[in-house]
Amino acid sequence: MLKLYSFGPGANSLKPLLTLYEMGIPFEKQLLNPAIFEHHEDWFKEINPRGQVPALVDHGKVITESTVICEYLQDEYPQYTKLRPEDSYRRAMMRIWTKWVDEYFCWCVSTIGWQRMVGRMVDHLSEEEFEEKVKRIPIPEQQVKWRRARHGFPPEMIEEEMGKIRISIARLEDHLSKNEWLVEGMYTLADICNFAIANGMQHGFPDIVNEKDTPGLMRWMKQINDRPACKKMFADVPRERVGGSPTQPQDQGEKSQPATAAE
Amino acid sequence: MLKLYSFGPGANSLKPLLTLYEMGIPFEKQLLNPAIFEHHEDWFKEINPRGQVPALVDHGKVITESTVICEYLQDEYPQYTKLRPEDSYRRAMMRIWTKWVDEYFCWCVSTIGWQRMVGRMVDHLSEEEFEEKVKRIPIPEQQVKWRRARHGFPPEMIEEEMGKIRISIARLEDHLSKNEWLVEGMYTLADICNFAIANGMQHGFPDIVNEKDTPGLMRWMKQINDRPACKKMFADVPRERVGGSPTQPQDQGEKSQPATAAE
Repeated sequence: MLKLYSFGPGANSLKPLLTLYEMGIPFEKQLLNPAIFEHHEDWFKEINPRGQVPALVDHGKVITESTVICEYLQDEYPQYTKLRPEDSYRRAMMRIWTKWVDEYFCWCVSTIGWQRMVGRMVDHLSEEEFEEKVKRIPIPEQQVKWRRARHGFPPEMIEEEMGKIRISIARLEDHLSKNEWLVEGMYTLADICNFAIANGMQHGFPDIVNEKDTPGLMRWMKQINDRPACKKMFADVPRERVGGSPTQPQDQGEKSQPATAAE
Repeated sequence: MLKLYSFGPGANSLKPLLTLYEMGIPFEKQLLNPAIFEHHEDWFKEINPRGQVPALVDHGKVITESTVICEYLQDEYPQYTKLRPEDSYRRAMMRIWTKWVDEYFCWCVSTIGWQRMVGRMVDHLSEEEFEEKVKRIPIPEQQVKWRRARHGFPPEMIEEEMGKIRISIARLEDHLSKNEWLVEGMYTLADICNFAIANGMQHGFPDIVNEKDTPGLMRWMKQINDRPACKKMFADVPRERVGGSPTQPQDQGEKSQPATAAE
């Protein structure tokens, strides 16, 4: 059976999670706890040497990178619900949106999330304990990011990223005020991957995302939240405790319970 | 007939160009000259409002983003040469590599390229003339990049990007010293998209890319350069005059000749 390792339904982990629920594929899930650096433990680095979730195991092989996993599921399981247009042009439009999330929208939101939450998460560690944990991170830039999260991101970086968030939200609102979905006429991976980052920003960034300024985006988020697959996902899987998204209700006190629940 | 707008065979423009040559699809090409900000002119912004090349026009519709164009060509023209594996797993491996180019490898190389070349390109303009041109750039971050290219990137940014280039080259060498292609057993879009950025780094970054330190990468680049499609592309299309890549022989003095040559 397919197995998905993730932080739960928020940020990049939400992309393959919601894709699996929307497609209706049975799968096993294992939640990792970023608060205890579980994704940097040796057992997980044997699965993904880069120490990153989400990671999917299928037919004994590992597939990583959230967007790539979503496309893989559509390629490998064509008998399940289709979340990609059949025609090449709209499929390209979908990929322009998923690429934009990965290269732009995701990064600015993530930096603010780290600034707000990840720093707090490692407050209780001594400098030595913290550095011990950072040493186990396989990607050098991730080490830099953890140190910045602990010691504070440069203010000009925060300002720049906030500017990018405003640009991102304006781009989504411009499109969603005129269109039901991101790709014409169909709910696709473009919606899922953008929703993964945007959902909850009405709480985390209420001055930017709200009924008055971004009615199109609010309508679209509600429409996805109201889908049966999305409801089932949020009912089944506890939200991430701490992680990439500054926008989800956090439950930092909870002890990691890497529950493995078969669907 | 398909029409591709590009800067010629270097950096991101090379990706769809080489894909078209490898597939053997007849197409029309129009070269734009970045030295005169041609991609920011109104006529081109009517084609791509973001003012970026490459852009493909097919069946009267515009497709943008180099990697998306390559996948589009494979989706839309399955009767031509296949540059994507049929099986979902290897297709996912291919996408991990193309995603990595777009999110990481391309950016660090591009910043150094801008630092080395784009600054020089706008030296002859007065501050007013320069700002007049920058105002026509539709993407705010691109405006920042042009200003930095003219006035100098912060040294710590250059240092960080050079570090990322070393990490990138080590990653490619590690893989290519043990494997013929990036995806097992097949020449794919992963090779084309990485080659687009790596080719010529033996000249632009000879202390990092050379026969002694990166024999696997050198062998792989030669193997691609020796392919008939690649030779034909370089013979047919003049290299970009100035642009995203710091690694191609430049011909800055040449007057823009947006030659439209049917294949």
